Amino acid sequence: MMPFLLLLAPFLLAVIAAAASGVIFPAAGPWYQSLNAPSFQPPNWLFGPVWTVLYLMIAVCGARLAVQAGQGAGLAGFALGLWALQITLNALWTPTFFGAHALGAALVIIGALWLSIAALMATALQIDRLAGWLLAPYLGWVSFAAVLNWAFWRLN
Amino acid sequence: MMPFLLLLAPFLLAVIAAAASGVIFPAAGPWYQSLNAPSFQPPNWLFGPVWTVLYLMIAVCGARLAVQAGQGAGLAGFALGLWALQITLNALWTPTFFGAHALGAALVIIGALWLSIAALMATALQIDRLAGWLLAPYLGWVSFAAVLNWAFWRLN
Repeated sequence: MMPFLLLLAPFLLAVIAAAASGVIFPAAGPWYQSLNAPSFQPPNWLFGPVWTVLYLMIAVCGARLAVQAGQGAGLAGFALGLWALQITLNALWTPTFFGAHALGAALVIIGALWLSIAALMATALQIDRLAGWLLAPYLGWVSFAAVLNWAFWRLN
Repeated sequence: MMPFLLLLAPFLLAVIAAAASGVIFPAAGPWYQSLNAPSFQPPNWLFGPVWTVLYLMIAVCGARLAVQAGQGAGLAGFALGLWALQITLNALWTPTFFGAHALGAALVIIGALWLSIAALMATALQIDRLAGWLLAPYLGWVSFAAVLNWAFWRLN
Protein backbone atom coordinates (compact mmCIF):
# COMPACT_ATOMS: atom_id res chain seq x y z
CA MET A 1 0.00 0.00 0.00
CA MET A 2 1.47 3.31 -1.16
CA PRO A 3 1.60 6.11 1.47
CA PHE A 4 -1.26 8.59 1.07
CA LEU A 5 1.06 11.59 0.55
CA LEU A 6 2.87 9.86 -2.33
CA LEU A 7 -0.48 8.94 -3.86
CA LEU A 8 -1.57 12.58 -3.47
CA ALA A 9 1.49 13.91 -5.34
CA PRO A 10 0.36 13.47 -8.98
CA PHE A 11 -3.11 14.83 -8.19
CA LEU A 12 -1.60 17.83 -6.41
CA LEU A 13 0.74 18.46 -9.37
CA ALA A 14 -2.24 18.23 -11.75
CA VAL A 15 -4.23 20.90 -9.85
CA ILE A 16 -1.06 23.05 -9.67
CA ALA A 17 -0.77 22.75 -13.47
CA ALA A 18 -4.43 23.81 -13.81
CA ALA A 19 -3.80 26.72 -11.41
CA ALA A 20 -0.78 27.76 -13.49
CA SER A 21 -3.19 28.63 -16.31
CA GLY A 22 -4.35 31.54 -14.13
CA VAL A 23 -0.74 32.75 -13.80
CA ILE A 24 -0.03 32.49 -17.53
CA PHE A 25 -3.40 34.10 -18.40
CA PRO A 26 -4.16 36.51 -15.51
CA ALA A 27 -7.58 38.15 -15.24
CA ALA A 28 -6.08 41.58 -14.52
CA GLY A 29 -5.60 43.47 -17.78
CA PRO A 30 -7.08 46.08 -20.09
CA TRP A 31 -9.26 43.63 -22.02
CA TYR A 32 -11.06 42.34 -18.91
CA GLN A 33 -11.42 45.88 -17.54
CA SER A 34 -13.05 46.93 -20.81
CA LEU A 35 -15.84 44.32 -20.56
CA ASN A 36 -19.36 45.11 -19.41
CA ALA A 37 -19.45 43.24 -16.08
CA PRO A 38 -22.65 41.80 -14.55
CA SER A 39 -23.80 43.34 -11.25
CA PHE A 40 -23.17 40.11 -9.32
CA GLN A 41 -19.50 39.88 -10.36
CA PRO A 42 -17.45 39.15 -7.19
CA PRO A 43 -14.30 41.19 -6.41
CA ASN A 44 -11.14 39.95 -8.17
CA TRP A 45 -9.28 39.18 -4.91
CA LEU A 46 -11.86 36.50 -4.06
CA PHE A 47 -10.90 34.10 -6.87
CA GLY A 48 -7.37 33.25 -5.62
CA PRO A 49 -8.33 32.06 -2.11
CA VAL A 50 -11.46 30.27 -3.35
CA TRP A 51 -9.59 28.32 -6.03
CA THR A 52 -6.73 27.48 -3.66
CA VAL A 53 -9.16 25.77 -1.27
CA LEU A 54 -11.14 24.12 -4.08
CA TYR A 55 -7.99 22.78 -5.80
CA LEU A 56 -6.76 21.22 -2.53
CA MET A 57 -10.14 19.52 -2.01
CA ILE A 58 -10.13 18.27 -5.63
CA ALA A 59 -6.62 16.81 -5.19
CA VAL A 60 -7.57 15.03 -1.94
CA CYS A 61 -10.67 13.64 -3.69
CA GLY A 62 -8.43 12.22 -6.44
CA ALA A 63 -6.01 10.64 -3.97
CA ARG A 64 -8.87 9.04 -2.02
CA LEU A 65 -10.24 7.55 -5.25
CA ALA A 66 -6.72 6.26 -6.00
CA VAL A 67 -6.70 4.51 -2.60
CA GLN A 68 -9.98 2.83 -3.56
CA ALA A 69 -8.51 1.83 -6.94
CA GLY A 70 -5.71 0.03 -5.10
CA GLN A 71 -8.39 -1.91 -3.22
CA GLY A 72 -10.21 -2.94 -6.38
CA ALA A 73 -13.30 -0.72 -6.20
CA GLY A 74 -15.09 -1.50 -9.47
CA LEU A 75 -15.91 2.11 -10.36
CA ALA A 76 -12.60 3.67 -9.24
CA GLY A 77 -10.93 3.54 -12.67
CA PHE A 78 -13.94 5.18 -14.32
CA ALA A 79 -14.04 7.83 -11.55
CA LEU A 80 -10.33 8.60 -12.07
CA GLY A 81 -10.99 8.98 -15.80
CA LEU A 82 -13.66 11.58 -14.95
CA TRP A 83 -11.19 13.21 -12.53
CA ALA A 84 -8.70 13.60 -15.42
CA LEU A 85 -11.47 14.97 -17.65
CA GLN A 86 -12.57 17.68 -15.19
CA ILE A 87 -9.01 18.91 -14.51
CA THR A 88 -8.25 19.09 -18.26
CA LEU A 89 -11.40 21.15 -18.90
CA ASN A 90 -10.59 23.28 -15.83
CA ALA A 91 -7.08 24.03 -17.20
CA LEU A 92 -8.53 24.87 -20.62
CA TRP A 93 -11.18 27.36 -19.45
CA THR A 94 -8.83 30.15 -18.29
CA PRO A 95 -6.79 30.39 -21.54
CA THR A 96 -10.01 30.28 -23.59
CA PHE A 97 -11.65 33.11 -21.63
CA PHE A 98 -8.67 35.32 -20.71
CA GLY A 99 -6.29 34.34 -23.56
CA ALA A 100 -8.42 33.75 -26.65
CA HIS A 101 -11.20 36.10 -25.36
CA ALA A 102 -13.61 33.48 -26.71
CA LEU A 103 -16.54 33.93 -24.30
CA GLY A 104 -18.82 31.54 -26.22
CA ALA A 105 -16.24 28.73 -26.44
CA ALA A 106 -15.47 29.29 -22.72
CA LEU A 107 -19.19 28.86 -21.97
CA VAL A 108 -19.20 25.52 -23.82
CA ILE A 109 -16.09 24.41 -21.87
CA ILE A 110 -17.53 25.42 -18.48
CA GLY A 111 -20.77 23.60 -19.35
CA ALA A 112 -18.77 20.45 -20.13
CA LEU A 113 -16.75 21.03 -16.93
CA TRP A 114 -19.96 21.24 -14.87
CA LEU A 115 -21.22 17.97 -16.36
CA SER A 116 -17.88 16.23 -15.74
CA ILE A 117 -17.83 17.35 -12.08
CA ALA A 118 -21.44 16.23 -11.58
CA ALA A 119 -20.67 12.83 -13.14
CA LEU A 120 -17.48 12.51 -11.06
CA MET A 121 -19.31 13.43 -7.84
CA ALA A 122 -22.14 10.95 -8.54
CA THR A 123 -19.56 8.20 -9.22
CA ALA A 124 -17.29 9.10 -6.28
CA LEU A 125 -20.22 9.05 -3.82
CA GLN A 126 -20.71 5.36 -4.66
CA ILE A 127 -17.05 4.55 -3.86
CA ASP A 128 -16.00 6.86 -1.01
CA ARG A 129 -18.53 9.29 0.47
CA LEU A 130 -15.91 11.82 1.59
CA ALA A 131 -14.31 11.87 -1.88
CA GLY A 132 -17.72 12.68 -3.33
CA TRP A 133 -18.65 15.40 -0.83
CA LEU A 134 -15.25 17.06 -1.25
CA LEU A 135 -16.51 18.08 -4.70
CA ALA A 136 -19.71 19.79 -3.53
CA PRO A 137 -18.15 23.27 -3.09
CA TYR A 138 -16.41 22.87 -6.48
CA LEU A 139 -19.70 22.03 -8.21
CA GLY A 140 -21.36 24.99 -6.48
CA TRP A 141 -18.62 27.43 -7.47
CA VAL A 142 -18.50 26.22 -11.08
CA SER A 143 -22.31 26.61 -11.27
CA PHE A 144 -21.87 30.24 -10.21
CA ALA A 145 -18.87 30.72 -12.56
CA ALA A 146 -20.93 29.31 -15.46
CA VAL A 147 -23.69 31.87 -14.80
CA LEU A 148 -21.01 34.57 -14.62
CA ASN A 149 -19.50 33.37 -17.92
CA TRP A 150 -22.98 33.36 -19.49
CA ALA A 151 -23.60 36.94 -18.28
CA PHE A 152 -20.26 38.12 -19.73
CA TRP A 153 -21.09 36.40 -23.02
CA ARG A 154 -24.52 38.11 -23.16
CA LEU A 155 -23.26 41.55 -22.15
CA ASN A 156 -20.28 41.68 -24.54
CA MET B 1 -17.13 -5.20 -14.61
CA MET B 2 -17.79 -2.08 -16.66
CA PRO B 3 -17.64 -2.53 -20.49
CA PHE B 4 -14.31 -1.35 -21.93
CA LEU B 5 -15.93 1.24 -24.24
CA LEU B 6 -17.74 2.88 -21.32
CA LEU B 7 -14.50 2.90 -19.33
CA LEU B 8 -12.76 4.45 -22.33
CA ALA B 9 -15.29 7.32 -22.60
CA PRO B 10 -13.90 9.73 -19.93
CA PHE B 11 -10.32 9.19 -21.15
CA LEU B 12 -11.38 9.80 -24.76
CA LEU B 13 -13.24 12.98 -23.72
CA ALA B 14 -10.15 14.15 -21.81
CA VAL B 15 -7.87 13.77 -24.86
CA ILE B 16 -10.54 15.49 -26.99
CA ALA B 17 -10.50 18.39 -24.50
CA ALA B 18 -6.70 18.54 -24.78
CA ALA B 19 -6.97 18.43 -28.59
CA ALA B 20 -9.51 21.29 -28.47
CA SER B 21 -6.70 23.55 -27.23
CA GLY B 22 -5.21 23.26 -30.73
CA VAL B 23 -8.51 24.40 -32.27
CA ILE B 24 -8.88 27.38 -29.90
CA PHE B 25 -5.21 28.31 -30.32
CA PRO B 26 -4.27 27.26 -33.88
CA ALA B 27 -0.63 27.30 -34.99
CA ALA B 28 -1.47 29.01 -38.30
CA GLY B 29 -1.25 32.77 -37.90
CA PRO B 30 0.93 35.81 -38.44
CA TRP B 31 2.77 35.48 -35.11
CA TYR B 32 3.95 31.91 -35.77
CA GLN B 33 4.88 32.80 -39.37
CA SER B 34 7.01 35.67 -38.07
CA LEU B 35 9.18 33.41 -35.87
CA ASN B 36 12.66 32.26 -36.84
CA ALA B 37 12.04 28.52 -37.33
CA PRO B 38 14.73 25.85 -36.79
CA SER B 39 15.82 23.89 -39.87
CA PHE B 40 14.37 20.62 -38.53
CA GLN B 41 10.84 22.03 -38.09
CA PRO B 42 8.38 19.51 -39.61
CA PRO B 43 5.65 20.70 -42.02
CA ASN B 44 2.49 22.00 -40.29
CA TRP B 45 0.20 19.35 -41.84
CA LEU B 46 2.08 16.62 -39.95
CA PHE B 47 0.95 17.66 -36.45
CA GLY B 48 -2.77 16.88 -36.87
CA PRO B 49 -2.44 13.23 -37.96
CA VAL B 50 0.39 12.56 -35.47
CA TRP B 51 -1.56 13.94 -32.50
CA THR B 52 -4.75 12.13 -33.55
CA VAL B 53 -2.96 8.76 -33.39
CA LEU B 54 -1.08 9.67 -30.18
CA TYR B 55 -4.25 10.89 -28.40
CA LEU B 56 -6.07 7.64 -29.26
CA MET B 57 -3.17 5.59 -27.87
CA ILE B 58 -3.06 7.75 -24.71
CA ALA B 59 -6.82 7.25 -24.16
CA VAL B 60 -6.57 3.46 -24.61
CA CYS B 61 -3.64 3.44 -22.15
CA GLY B 62 -5.84 5.24 -19.59
CA ALA B 63 -8.77 2.87 -20.06
CA ARG B 64 -6.48 -0.18 -19.69
CA LEU B 65 -5.12 1.27 -16.43
CA ALA B 66 -8.73 1.82 -15.31
CA VAL B 67 -9.44 -1.88 -15.95
CA GLN B 68 -6.48 -2.74 -13.71
CA ALA B 69 -7.79 -0.33 -11.03
CA GLY B 70 -11.07 -2.26 -11.00
CA GLN B 71 -9.03 -5.40 -10.33
CA GLY B 72 -7.15 -3.86 -7.42
CA ALA B 73 -3.70 -3.34 -8.98
CA GLY B 74 -1.80 -1.52 -6.22
CA LEU B 75 -0.18 1.07 -8.47
CA ALA B 76 -3.21 1.73 -10.70
CA GLY B 77 -4.51 4.73 -8.71
CA PHE B 78 -1.08 6.37 -8.73
CA ALA B 79 -0.74 5.68 -12.48
CA LEU B 80 -4.15 7.26 -13.16
CA GLY B 81 -3.05 10.33 -11.16
CA LEU B 82 -0.03 10.60 -13.47
CA TRP B 83 -2.35 10.11 -16.45
CA ALA B 84 -4.40 13.12 -15.27
CA LEU B 85 -1.20 15.13 -14.76
CA GLN B 86 0.15 14.51 -18.27
CA ILE B 87 -3.13 15.39 -20.01
CA THR B 88 -3.47 18.62 -17.99
CA LEU B 89 0.08 19.68 -18.93
CA ASN B 90 -0.60 18.62 -22.52
CA ALA B 91 -3.73 20.85 -22.65
CA LEU B 92 -1.80 23.76 -21.13
CA TRP B 93 1.16 23.74 -23.54
CA THR B 94 -0.69 24.87 -26.69
CA PRO B 95 -2.31 28.01 -25.15
CA THR B 96 1.00 28.93 -23.50
CA PHE B 97 2.98 28.67 -26.75
CA PHE B 98 0.42 29.81 -29.36
CA GLY B 99 -1.81 31.98 -27.13
CA ALA B 100 0.47 33.67 -24.59
CA HIS B 101 3.51 33.45 -26.94
CA ALA B 102 5.48 32.53 -23.82
CA LEU B 103 8.17 30.30 -25.33
CA GLY B 104 10.11 30.00 -22.04
CA ALA B 105 7.05 29.06 -19.94
CA ALA B 106 6.04 26.59 -22.69
CA LEU B 107 9.51 25.01 -22.43
CA VAL B 108 9.04 24.55 -18.65
CA ILE B 109 5.60 22.99 -19.27
CA ILE B 110 6.86 20.59 -21.96
CA GLY B 111 9.74 19.59 -19.65
CA ALA B 112 7.24 18.78 -16.89
CA LEU B 113 5.08 16.98 -19.47
CA TRP B 114 8.04 14.83 -20.55
CA LEU B 115 8.78 13.89 -16.93
CA SER B 116 5.10 13.06 -16.26
CA ILE B 117 4.90 10.82 -19.35
CA ALA B 118 8.15 9.05 -18.40
CA ALA B 119 6.87 8.49 -14.82
CA LEU B 120 3.51 7.28 -16.15
CA MET B 121 5.16 4.91 -18.63
CA ALA B 122 7.47 3.48 -15.95
CA THR B 123 4.48 2.94 -13.63
CA ALA B 124 2.16 1.57 -16.33
CA LEU B 125 4.77 -0.99 -17.46
CA GLN B 126 4.59 -2.54 -13.98
CA ILE B 127 0.79 -2.91 -14.20
CA ASP B 128 -0.07 -3.64 -17.84
CA ARG B 129 2.72 -3.93 -20.40
CA LEU B 130 0.56 -2.84 -23.35
CA ALA B 131 -0.65 0.26 -21.46
CA GLY B 132 2.99 1.21 -20.90
CA TRP B 133 4.19 0.58 -24.45
CA LEU B 134 1.25 2.56 -25.87
CA LEU B 135 3.03 5.63 -24.48
CA ALA B 136 6.37 5.04 -26.22
CA PRO B 137 5.49 7.00 -29.41
CA TYR B 138 4.06 9.81 -27.23
CA LEU B 139 7.27 10.05 -25.20
CA GLY B 140 9.30 10.04 -28.42
CA TRP B 141 7.22 12.76 -30.05
CA VAL B 142 7.22 14.97 -26.94
CA SER B 143 11.03 14.59 -26.74
CA PHE B 144 11.21 15.93 -30.30
CA ALA B 145 8.63 18.66 -29.57
CA ALA B 146 10.64 19.75 -26.51
CA VAL B 147 13.78 20.14 -28.65
CA LEU B 148 11.68 22.08 -31.17
CA ASN B 149 10.30 24.32 -28.38
CA TRP B 150 13.85 24.85 -27.10
CA ALA B 151 15.05 25.84 -30.59
CA PHE B 152 12.17 28.34 -31.01
CA TRP B 153 12.97 29.79 -27.60
CA ARG B 154 16.67 30.19 -28.51
CA LEU B 155 16.02 31.64 -31.98
CA ASN B 156 13.38 34.20 -30.97
